[in-house]
Amino acid sequence: MARQDRTAEARMEFNAFLAVCPSRQLLARISDKWVVLILCALSGDRDASSPEPTAPIPMRYSELSRLLAGVSQKMLTQTLRSLERDGLVTRTVTPTVPVTVTYELTDLGSSLHDVTRGLRTWAQDHMGEVLRNREEHEAPAG
Amino acid sequence: MARQDRTAEARMEFNAFLAVCPSRQLLARISDKWVVLILCALSGDRDASSPEPTAPIPMRYSELSRLLAGVSQKMLTQTLRSLERDGLVTRTVTPTVPVTVTYELTDLGSSLHDVTRGLRTWAQDHMGEVLRNREEHEAPAG
Repeated sequence: MARQDRTAEARMEFNAFLAVCPSRQLLARISDKWVVLILCALSGDRDASSPEPTAPIPMRYSELSRLLAGVSQKMLTQTLRSLERDGLVTRTVTPTVPVTVTYELTDLGSSLHDVTRGLRTWAQDHMGEVLRNREEHEAPAG
Repeated sequence: MARQDRTAEARMEFNAFLAVCPSRQLLARISDKWVVLILCALSGDRDASSPEPTAPIPMRYSELSRLLAGVSQKMLTQTLRSLERDGLVTRTVTPTVPVTVTYELTDLGSSLHDVTRGLRTWAQDHMGEVLRNREEHEAPAG
């Protein structure tokens, strides 16, 4: 089946508004700050000031762990495992001493990054406006 | 200050890779399946098969609760409160008996929906591919 046909078919089949639809669970998986940041990192989209497309680059576990400040080992490992299982990243083990483990985006992972990259830049670009809205909301009326 | 200047300034100031940056917390807030689905609902972007832009429509709490199958009252209320506080939705109380509470997207909320709408359609469009990847990943090798 051609890719476009499959996409059209998928649109008929899945609806994330429904609690029992598997796409609801997938939406929950990809709506995650660590997923957004890992995809940015592996896409070379790391610069705060530049949302321009850059080349995907494989990264070692330890590099990811350092870049994603504050992520726990458990959370990073779980998130990477789930991305690997869903076919969004590949994991390569090189038998050095100690072994080197690298992660790389697949084409499917890149297609998701195209969608999620906007979340990071939106948060950064609108932070000032949101902070002002919060102040206004909390100010006593009158 | 012109809007564009503020955006340029914001890009310099905020970086979601940093644990202490407020934009990290905002990214976490907006990377949420209920936020994605509420923004879709209030944008009139409810049809599984149509990712076309549609007109924003105010919705009552009870309508949202019905459309977002499986959401708990507590979660829906908390999420709407946080969206209201951040200036993404407005809440209007009409003194009927019983009172009618409606929610509507602000311009800022619409700008976030432009970014997050892709997540729902990506999940729906790629569900088949992800399911095949999972099967492959779990199949015994050899």
